[in-house]
Amino acid sequence: MRVLGIDPGIAIAGFGFIDKIGNKLVPVQYGSIETEAHTPAETRLLQVYESMGTLLDKYKPDAIAVEKLFFNRNVTTAFAVGQARGVIILAAAQRGIQVAEYTPLQVKQAVVGYGKAEKRQVQEMVKMFLKLAAVPKPDDVADALAIAICHAHSAVLQNKINEVSRR
Amino acid sequence: MRVLGIDPGIAIAGFGFIDKIGNKLVPVQYGSIETEAHTPAETRLLQVYESMGTLLDKYKPDAIAVEKLFFNRNVTTAFAVGQARGVIILAAAQRGIQVAEYTPLQVKQAVVGYGKAEKRQVQEMVKMFLKLAAVPKPDDVADALAIAICHAHSAVLQNKINEVSRR
Repeated sequence: MRVLGIDPGIAIAGFGFIDKIGNKLVPVQYGSIETEAHTPAETRLLQVYESMGTLLDKYKPDAIAVEKLFFNRNVTTAFAVGQARGVIILAAAQRGIQVAEYTPLQVKQAVVGYGKAEKRQVQEMVKMFLKLAAVPKPDDVADALAIAICHAHSAVLQNKINEVSRR
Repeated sequence: MRVLGIDPGIAIAGFGFIDKIGNKLVPVQYGSIETEAHTPAETRLLQVYESMGTLLDKYKPDAIAVEKLFFNRNVTTAFAVGQARGVIILAAAQRGIQVAEYTPLQVKQAVVGYGKAEKRQVQEMVKMFLKLAAVPKPDDVADALAIAICHAHSAVLQNKINEVSRR
C-alpha cells in the first residue's frame, strides 16, 4: 500500500509518499510544493492543484492522509490553508483516491505513542521509522511524512481488526 | 461586463450572474449549488467544483467576486468554507477569469452606502438594483448578488478614475 501524507498550505505544502511493505515503511519520495508570495491567490491555488496532480499521476498513491483540523486561532490563516487543502483534496477526488483525515493528536499518538509529544519527538520518530539519515526539512515535509506514517499504522490496525472479526 | 458574485460554502454556495450594461445592472441567472450532508468532503468538493465549472462555461463571466474574509470565530467552519472557496477560485483560474475579493464592509458600503447596514437592508437594495419581484432566497443567493453588485459598482468607479487620470 502506498500512502501520501500532506501538510497543506498555500505558501508551502509538504508531501511524503511512503510504501507499507509487510510491516516495513519505506520512503518513496518527499518534498514540498512552494508558491511565490505577492502572486494572486488564484494563481497560487492553480499551481498547488497542478503540482499535486503531477505528483499523484507519477506516484499513484492508494490513499491520501491530511490533518483534520488546524488548531490555530487565526481565522485568516485557517481560511488560506483551507483553500489549499480544498484543491489538494479535489485533485485526489478526481482520481478516485481515498482521503483520510487525522487530528494532530492522532498523528502524535500513532507516531510517538503519546498525544502530547513535542514536534521534535515526532520528527525523530519519522527519521527512525523511515531509516532516514536526517530529519527532513522544512518542518512541513516531516509533518507530511508523520501523517503518512499515521495512516499506514492505522491501516495496519484496521487490517488486524478485520482479521479478528473474520474468525 | 458580466460579473459572477459567489457566497462560497460546502453545504450551499450562492451564485449570481449580473450584466452591467451602461449604468444598468441586469440579473442573468442566480441560484445555489447544494451538496448532501453525510457525504465525504472530497465528493462534495468535487460536486461544487464541477457545478461551478458548468456554470462558468455556460454564462462566461468576465470577472468573479467573492467575500474576502469570513468573520466567524469558528475555525472549523472557516476551514470548510475555505476548502469550497478554493475549488471555486480554481475553476475560475483554470478559465483565466479574474477573481476580485471584497470584505463584508465593502459589500455593504457599495450596495447600501453604509458599512454597518443590516442584512435585511442589503437584501432590499439587491431587490431594488436588480428590479426583482422579491428578495432572492435563500440568503446565500442574495449575498452572492450583493457581492456581484459591489464588484460592478467598483468597476464603474474604477472606470471613472481611469477617465479622470487620462485627461
